[in-house]
Amino acid sequence: MQVRLLLGAFLIAVRKRHIQYMQEALKEAQKAFDEDEVPVGAVIVYKDRIISRGHNQVERLKDPTAHAEMIAITGATNYLNTKWLNAASLYVTIEPCSMCAGALVLARIKNLYFAAKDPKTGACGSITNIANHKKLNHRIKVKSGILKEECSFLLREFFSRIRSSRRAGSRVLSDSLAGKKKRFNKSTK
Amino acid sequence: MQVRLLLGAFLIAVRKRHIQYMQEALKEAQKAFDEDEVPVGAVIVYKDRIISRGHNQVERLKDPTAHAEMIAITGATNYLNTKWLNAASLYVTIEPCSMCAGALVLARIKNLYFAAKDPKTGACGSITNIANHKKLNHRIKVKSGILKEECSFLLREFFSRIRSSRRAGSRVLSDSLAGKKKRFNKSTK
Repeated sequence: MQVRLLLGAFLIAVRKRHIQYMQEALKEAQKAFDEDEVPVGAVIVYKDRIISRGHNQVERLKDPTAHAEMIAITGATNYLNTKWLNAASLYVTIEPCSMCAGALVLARIKNLYFAAKDPKTGACGSITNIANHKKLNHRIKVKSGILKEECSFLLREFFSRIRSSRRAGSRVLSDSLAGKKKRFNKSTK
Repeated sequence: MQVRLLLGAFLIAVRKRHIQYMQEALKEAQKAFDEDEVPVGAVIVYKDRIISRGHNQVERLKDPTAHAEMIAITGATNYLNTKWLNAASLYVTIEPCSMCAGALVLARIKNLYFAAKDPKTGACGSITNIANHKKLNHRIKVKSGILKEECSFLLREFFSRIRSSRRAGSRVLSDSLAGKKKRFNKSTK
């Protein structure tokens, strides 16, 4: 009975730790959101400590490779002064794309924890599975779903804001066109 | 008849241009070779001009993401001050891996020319096809085989050199172990 209780307590502690690290990744995603970037954040954990952080900076750097995971990988290898991260774990707010999953395999990362699935570009089970490809020489232990509601909410909020500003933009554009038309009509009368 | 001749001359000129650009990528691969990196090189061409170059720097930077293609992509987007390369072409000495193929899709590059196929990690037809994935929102025009003999030779030469130095290294190691054993035997006699 006591063994069961101890095991239960251990599992609760592990789950709590996963949530804490995903919350840190979510903080990174919030930074991206505040900078008008697609809100994705990541942290890399080694020996129970965060050694690197990254948030999406594609728009700011005008660099399609500047995904949260890529920035976190380069930061972690730089910190450890090694090209491999085989004892480290990555926490990221959305399923990595082909580029990021490929980079994680190249970095030989041990564990990947992601929050929400990405049915459009996710390469860890959704559209393909680079994280566990039978022909590649490294397989990653993958777990998904931690804080998926919170991470998905931030993404939904971002894209809804984009759509609203686009609609407002097209309204402004059509108002401006209408204005031009009025001016044109006046000048030709 | 004249139209045929003109078409032939045009095709020869196009092929010559592809070879010239791949030769530039090969020069980049040679730089990697000289720096004891896996010899892969890439150039990005925009409006018939090379706008960025890259060679593998994984060992030097201790960064698994520092592939030739990634360096060339970041260089090109930086040069054009845009996150997309939809009118550009990449020439690379070997088939891109999942990370690089994913990055090329994200960069929306128009054309990809690679020399040799990579049956172990190639993600443009060999182990998977990220460059032309039905679920992704961008497809790349891919052509392979330009200067494949020259590019493969450099890679074979590199790995043969690695194997030789490993064999020499293990001989040195076994000699050193034998020496240690001798010293140990002497001190315990």
